[in-house]
Amino acid sequence: MRFRFEEEQAPGLWLTYGVRSVLRQEKTAYQELAVVETETFGRTLILDGAVQTTERDEFFYHEMITHVPMFSHPRPRRVLVVGGGDGGVVREVLKHPTVERVDLVEIDARVLEATRELMPRLAAALADPRVNLVVQDGVEFVAACEEAYDVAVVDSTDPVGPAAGLYRPEFYASLARVLYPGGLFTCQVESPVFCPDVLVRARGTVGEYFPVARIYWGPVPTYPAGWWGFVVGSHGPDPSRPPDGDRTEGITTRYYTRETHRAAFALPRYLQEMLARDGAAPSGGG
Amino acid sequence: MRFRFEEEQAPGLWLTYGVRSVLRQEKTAYQELAVVETETFGRTLILDGAVQTTERDEFFYHEMITHVPMFSHPRPRRVLVVGGGDGGVVREVLKHPTVERVDLVEIDARVLEATRELMPRLAAALADPRVNLVVQDGVEFVAACEEAYDVAVVDSTDPVGPAAGLYRPEFYASLARVLYPGGLFTCQVESPVFCPDVLVRARGTVGEYFPVARIYWGPVPTYPAGWWGFVVGSHGPDPSRPPDGDRTEGITTRYYTRETHRAAFALPRYLQEMLARDGAAPSGGG
Repeated sequence: MRFRFEEEQAPGLWLTYGVRSVLRQEKTAYQELAVVETETFGRTLILDGAVQTTERDEFFYHEMITHVPMFSHPRPRRVLVVGGGDGGVVREVLKHPTVERVDLVEIDARVLEATRELMPRLAAALADPRVNLVVQDGVEFVAACEEAYDVAVVDSTDPVGPAAGLYRPEFYASLARVLYPGGLFTCQVESPVFCPDVLVRARGTVGEYFPVARIYWGPVPTYPAGWWGFVVGSHGPDPSRPPDGDRTEGITTRYYTRETHRAAFALPRYLQEMLARDGAAPSGGG
Repeated sequence: MRFRFEEEQAPGLWLTYGVRSVLRQEKTAYQELAVVETETFGRTLILDGAVQTTERDEFFYHEMITHVPMFSHPRPRRVLVVGGGDGGVVREVLKHPTVERVDLVEIDARVLEATRELMPRLAAALADPRVNLVVQDGVEFVAACEEAYDVAVVDSTDPVGPAAGLYRPEFYASLARVLYPGGLFTCQVESPVFCPDVLVRARGTVGEYFPVARIYWGPVPTYPAGWWGFVVGSHGPDPSRPPDGDRTEGITTRYYTRETHRAAFALPRYLQEMLARDGAAPSGGG
């Protein structure tokens, strides 16, 4: 028996996975959820028809959305993760020895349960005693939040469905408020190939609430076009400057290095030009 | 009417293109050739079932395989292109004002004809008076060659079928011989995601004939996993060092910048570790 799962990554372009078995398929209160065993990428979490994370290539995404802000902060102790119910971001956050507490705010308890049961290597980090799980809408949580954080990572689905609110200016304003002075946040913002305009707009919006707003990118083989954009907002530190070498010692990664950190801010010329036309953000650059 | 073209990019993984029309489909003396109008990437050249180049994303590949060696050489005048019958590499080579002559050696005249007729924006460069077209097997040409070059670019299909000889050590030895002192060559070497072992082996083999052998990579959305590996051999210059700023002035690119040149040599940690285990090449690094 062999299935295929097909995702339309852009109009007229599909990535198709050979599937050995469908381990779970359900409609939750928020979205359609599936975990499948693929032939090429191992176990794979799919939400509303879009591949979210696979065992084989998840490290590219999770390392780059996490270590860029974490290593840019001089001493991250309290971290907020919005979304990321698969546990991948939390696993990377906990590699930093300064971390005392991580609040993970996931809207859909079924995502937590599915990955805990079926993708345990990813979800294992969620059992760490420093992790506080909150099942709530991230927008509501941050709007009402009276805590403060050094770093926030927004690991959401695309800007349709349950994650739509995470792309609105009000959410960036709330994030700016809950971060300590010198704090940073990152979120994923679509494909630099198919939707560079989304990246440019996100840089502009984040720049209204943070003195530093930058775009960076990294390879994510199972996302459309194979590489992906991120936006980082900072209340202080320059997020494009990699940490000192001794800071990375003892932290095991598969993609991230000081060199790939710096390289992630080297944008294609066409994207640089779009950012320049959009007007210099307060950071003065892409 | 709507067709689909499906390429198996790795075992159990397919990229599927919506196709408006099949403009040409033929069996040449060497391979099966098609030019199709895709919905997402414009006109697309397909050889033996593998997408070679598309109008929309070809600049990533052609700029990175060409400008890294061209800008690493202090004054490239004579250039050899092996394969590359679509004209994309030649177009990038001719952007460098020092270039006096380009020999393009393409094994399959039908590739030249098909792209001249159907992808003229790519093939236009082939009509430049500095370009000398040779329809011949690249391995034979280089083995018998009594010319010398500053830069050679090997823009071939994958290491099966007509391009198999371009991946053998004897070919690298011939290339090393036809390059002037201080000369450089690049070739494409597979996916850093699916075939990192091929990159590691290529670095080792090139290192037997060149004092500097390095791996670099760049995004190519229509190739497996969306990013691609290259190997560069150099008789002298450090290919990872970008040119001075005034050298790039007036040369129009869409992906390449001094920063993306440098960033292309920032390899994932897993690949660095594989290269280190393979033993330091004469360059002393990846």
